[in-house]
Amino acid sequence: MELNEAIAKFKATNKLLHAYNHAMGVMYYDIETAAPKNAAAGFGETLGTLSEVAYKLSVNEENFALVDFLTEHALELDEITRREVEETAKEIRQARRVPVDEYVECRKIQATASAVWHDAKVKSDYAMFEPHLAKLVEYLRRFAGYMAPEKDAYDFWLEEHEEGFTTDVLDVYFAKVKEALVPLIHAIAKRPQIDDSFLQKAYPIEKQREFSHYLMEVMGINGDDCTLGETEHPFTTGFSKHDVRITTHYHENMLASNMYSVIHEGGHATYELNTADELISSPLAGGASCGMHESQSRFYENIIGRSLEFIKLVFPKLTELFPEQLAGVTPEMFYLAVNKAEPSLIRTEADELTYSLHVLIRYELEKRLFNGTLSTKELPSEWNRLYKEYLGVDVPDDKHGVLQDSHWSGGMFGYFPSYSLGSAYGAQIVAHMRKEMDIDGLVSKGNLKAIVDWLTEHIYKYGMVKKPKELIRICCGEDFDARYYTEYLIEKFSNIYGL
Amino acid sequence: MELNEAIAKFKATNKLLHAYNHAMGVMYYDIETAAPKNAAAGFGETLGTLSEVAYKLSVNEENFALVDFLTEHALELDEITRREVEETAKEIRQARRVPVDEYVECRKIQATASAVWHDAKVKSDYAMFEPHLAKLVEYLRRFAGYMAPEKDAYDFWLEEHEEGFTTDVLDVYFAKVKEALVPLIHAIAKRPQIDDSFLQKAYPIEKQREFSHYLMEVMGINGDDCTLGETEHPFTTGFSKHDVRITTHYHENMLASNMYSVIHEGGHATYELNTADELISSPLAGGASCGMHESQSRFYENIIGRSLEFIKLVFPKLTELFPEQLAGVTPEMFYLAVNKAEPSLIRTEADELTYSLHVLIRYELEKRLFNGTLSTKELPSEWNRLYKEYLGVDVPDDKHGVLQDSHWSGGMFGYFPSYSLGSAYGAQIVAHMRKEMDIDGLVSKGNLKAIVDWLTEHIYKYGMVKKPKELIRICCGEDFDARYYTEYLIEKFSNIYGL
Repeated sequence: MELNEAIAKFKATNKLLHAYNHAMGVMYYDIETAAPKNAAAGFGETLGTLSEVAYKLSVNEENFALVDFLTEHALELDEITRREVEETAKEIRQARRVPVDEYVECRKIQATASAVWHDAKVKSDYAMFEPHLAKLVEYLRRFAGYMAPEKDAYDFWLEEHEEGFTTDVLDVYFAKVKEALVPLIHAIAKRPQIDDSFLQKAYPIEKQREFSHYLMEVMGINGDDCTLGETEHPFTTGFSKHDVRITTHYHENMLASNMYSVIHEGGHATYELNTADELISSPLAGGASCGMHESQSRFYENIIGRSLEFIKLVFPKLTELFPEQLAGVTPEMFYLAVNKAEPSLIRTEADELTYSLHVLIRYELEKRLFNGTLSTKELPSEWNRLYKEYLGVDVPDDKHGVLQDSHWSGGMFGYFPSYSLGSAYGAQIVAHMRKEMDIDGLVSKGNLKAIVDWLTEHIYKYGMVKKPKELIRICCGEDFDARYYTEYLIEKFSNIYGL
Repeated sequence: MELNEAIAKFKATNKLLHAYNHAMGVMYYDIETAAPKNAAAGFGETLGTLSEVAYKLSVNEENFALVDFLTEHALELDEITRREVEETAKEIRQARRVPVDEYVECRKIQATASAVWHDAKVKSDYAMFEPHLAKLVEYLRRFAGYMAPEKDAYDFWLEEHEEGFTTDVLDVYFAKVKEALVPLIHAIAKRPQIDDSFLQKAYPIEKQREFSHYLMEVMGINGDDCTLGETEHPFTTGFSKHDVRITTHYHENMLASNMYSVIHEGGHATYELNTADELISSPLAGGASCGMHESQSRFYENIIGRSLEFIKLVFPKLTELFPEQLAGVTPEMFYLAVNKAEPSLIRTEADELTYSLHVLIRYELEKRLFNGTLSTKELPSEWNRLYKEYLGVDVPDDKHGVLQDSHWSGGMFGYFPSYSLGSAYGAQIVAHMRKEMDIDGLVSKGNLKAIVDWLTEHIYKYGMVKKPKELIRICCGEDFDARYYTEYLIEKFSNIYGL
């Protein structure tokens, strides 16, 4: 085969896959935001049919041979094509290496485990879920062996989500997080708590909608490229840099909920909206990794959005929209309220300070499940013990404990750490940005564009062309270092709680 | 080939086509209701790719042979499969019979004509559009000859949209419409006009939204199967009987606009929502024809929605939502206002009485373009002459005249009559329904369910299994007859205008 011909064939398949993924992505967005309830069955049928077509398009001997051929000629390819080939090879690896009967069996177990988990969570009945979880862990350990026999199984799954972040890196990272945060959280527990009751007043949803659009404007998000939808659980999805959808959920009595959903999802959107033009329609058009994506959403949500400068910037709009609800409230009071830190049971509702401890607990448990020092039967008691030890909270039942997240039921192991790494990346990156620009001054003036431009130049434009470790080096001129994150949190929360 | 095997293969292809059409349909809905403006280019790419895949799936020699084989065995097929085969044969006919170079050339001319029309309409410059239109007419005449050499070309295109309604039927129909309505419209022009100024007060959109959902409830539309979206030009689309989307557009100063959009689109939805369960995923799940679909939207909009009984039914809700705007307005005044009849220039804004004359003009012109007694050069002057003669209005420019509709620029000839036939079907059907039930009494009590049930039993459940002519016979026990429509309009508007 000629190299040029092979490249053309590879790109043509990618174009077709892009069309399928685009259509399916729009359907997923639609079902979450617009479709009537009973549309679900019909969507399931169509998505099943289209996924099968897309699957067959990439998982076949001819495509395997093509990818192998291009991999052999990797050095002759331009950087984008080389990375596209690498990502494709990674995607088809599971279908190539895992015996097909085991692969099918595992998919079935995943489907069952998901269904059982939904039920088990409602009933707070871990025992009914445990046998399925045990099987899943067993299959995933075995699959890792098929795909990368030279690697530790948990390391393999960790790298599926965040390349370069295996247990040797994460053990160091989480040890530092634990060492810094556990004493800080315990110290804060003894301080008088912040009053945030004014955030729970009635804030009319129509006015909150207006505020959402104002926030998008402040963030510099172009409404012709990005819309705001409403959904049960906020998320962001992007089909190209000219079509990104962020979503939110309005609660009349929780002003901060929508406000920080919009800023968080707006951070994800900002990443997608600023990838390079040359990546349009390429499978590399998205963010570098889950962790890198999360670094941007959390950067805007916490580092920018929960700063005193940002609160001061948006406060005039807030008091214009909600003059009665915010009567007597100062920007400083608002700043303290949205930064209230308090250990809690549910990860997705955790504050900036305690969040990474929720992740740490899951990391420790996953690692032990995979290295055989913890059984799925022992999981709930270990879960509860660690929540007590690190966060000081008593888990009342498994619904509020080990059954709270959907990830494990879908076979997603090794994913949680990326949530915490995102915050750590953000803290390290911002520390380096501060050397080059006065971030607080820019935020005070509402000039977020300068910040977006810097991040575009150092991160966004690359899409998936560069990997997370490389991006950290591009931004910071050094390797990943957890110290920035712990220092940032210690400084911020010691100030807030007067320690 | 075994017949069973052929049927299975045919159904499998349909299933795949259904998935593509479903996905593309959701994308079309999304682009009209949710997507950011700049998403258009990416959507164009993906829709282009998927249409090509779908096209190749049905337009190929193997599929032609399959459809021919099944057509030969038509008598051995069940009714649904037989009709599916018939519809598929009809769909692939153009690709089979028209020489491929001419087919491609015509598609290009269509694309150009559409683009030029947009521009020409803005500039009100018919001359720039005329050469493209001339070519389109010429191609379509020739194509009709390839596909059905035994038929008159215009009859062929008429039957593409409404089977059984060729010029011999339509000439009689439109002659009766003209004879009845032209004098009536001229007579009304001499009567004092109805005051509908209160409909142009400020009606807050949030309240109008509430009213829309109330109307859907009154119509018995289940919100779990059908949602209401917002768009520039209202339309309805259905992906299955459990997923129908109606859309509307709110104008603060035009209460009736949204009200009758919701009822009109709700009529289309009611049809889709009540097709038989066995047609789910079948290409026969939609309405029997454009005309039959329009008969239902116009039935709910005009015959039900603009009746005094319906106005009385919804008036308490109207005055609850808009007490100030409707102070001093009685249901009778509201009834008159929403039935105001006044000749105008634009078809899509025409009232119930004058609407069919807009269609008649287009029908007469299309017929003459196709039989060679009118050239595209003469079209605007003939258009203006007929508007003056039938509706008594002077066309000031082509933008408000011959360039107003998009249909011809897309090569859609023979389509307009179905808009008018819809109203005529509705009038004939309701005349027969009245023999079996007290429609006014049911509407007064808000019992629209009995009406929907009757229509489900006689029309909706069949989807496309029965053709429009057959459905009229099922409903009315007789053939289509224009008399019901003209009698209905004469009675209603003579009363309203005291003639």
